[in-house]
Amino acid sequence: MTGSNGTRSGRRPGNSGTREAILDAARVRFAEVGFDKASIRSIATAAGVDPALVHHYFGTKHQLFAAALQLPVDPQTILSGFAAVPRTELGTHIVRTVVTIWDSPAGMPAVAAIRSLLASDDPTLARTFLLEIVLKEIRPLVDSPPGTGAKRAALAASQLAGLLVTRKILRLEPIASMPVEELAATVGPTLQRYFTGDLPLQN
Amino acid sequence: MTGSNGTRSGRRPGNSGTREAILDAARVRFAEVGFDKASIRSIATAAGVDPALVHHYFGTKHQLFAAALQLPVDPQTILSGFAAVPRTELGTHIVRTVVTIWDSPAGMPAVAAIRSLLASDDPTLARTFLLEIVLKEIRPLVDSPPGTGAKRAALAASQLAGLLVTRKILRLEPIASMPVEELAATVGPTLQRYFTGDLPLQN
Repeated sequence: MTGSNGTRSGRRPGNSGTREAILDAARVRFAEVGFDKASIRSIATAAGVDPALVHHYFGTKHQLFAAALQLPVDPQTILSGFAAVPRTELGTHIVRTVVTIWDSPAGMPAVAAIRSLLASDDPTLARTFLLEIVLKEIRPLVDSPPGTGAKRAALAASQLAGLLVTRKILRLEPIASMPVEELAATVGPTLQRYFTGDLPLQN
Repeated sequence: MTGSNGTRSGRRPGNSGTREAILDAARVRFAEVGFDKASIRSIATAAGVDPALVHHYFGTKHQLFAAALQLPVDPQTILSGFAAVPRTELGTHIVRTVVTIWDSPAGMPAVAAIRSLLASDDPTLARTFLLEIVLKEIRPLVDSPPGTGAKRAALAASQLAGLLVTRKILRLEPIASMPVEELAATVGPTLQRYFTGDLPLQN
């Protein structure tokens, strides 16, 4: 993050102020219109900077979103890896992967960010993250029979969200201390059933 | 809530102030030492009132706890009903019962209370509620083989917590709009497997 050039409007001096202004504008914009409809240009305008500076600081729109949510990694990187996993192993693989990230030092700020999103009066940003980033990638992988993917992915999200809440936010024992592999073996099949099981879904 | 007698120390005038002082003291005490160890006497002392007044306003310690957490009903009433449900139907029954409560008008303040507990820097009160009230009742019902009840109940709590977060806090579609019976039929079997399934638990 070197180089102090690039601010056109000069509304805020210094890199740190500019970065924060971009992140603030991004959070507002993503919450207002969602991930897909929020353009880098509109975020740059709201922050009073050139769009090129947003790309310079944050890279892609996915990476900007990850930074706005204080995620330790671009979720796209992890999600795109799921497509290569055999469908029959997706549940266990996802539980193992996400719990490992939460438990890592890099996961701490992400857990804190998710907690503050849950506490927010407006859950739009958290919902946008789930609907337009996470579930959008998972849905087509599990859409069999066609039309069931949205419910399958959302049910899996409900189990993972609850695992995050009990293990990392409430730190509820014995869940908080269970080894990753034990969680993968016990909770993985829950996700697997939601993904590929014969569910009594309506319509 | 009539009657203004009973305040001994007279630290706070009026019923409403006294009730709030008791609830504040209860929240602090339950968070400090847990449900079991927090006595009505110690809560009354901290609130500067006679223990009889705590009973007069709130009834049992369970009912005081429910009031401190702004729960719409004494959870004990619901939990004690679970013991009579056939073990093989426990998962579906619990999902149907708790989702129905969340969705009712009385559930709204409870959902709000849970959200603020999740957001709190100190998750002790939420953990106390789960460990000493909810899971304590469920554990003995599902402790087969002996010693597995704590993990079984906590895993079920993780799925229910996530259902609450996605349906009521994030209002994530399509989960937010799924009929109670569809959730009971799809998520109920998850709880059932945690309760009575052959889980690969360690130790």
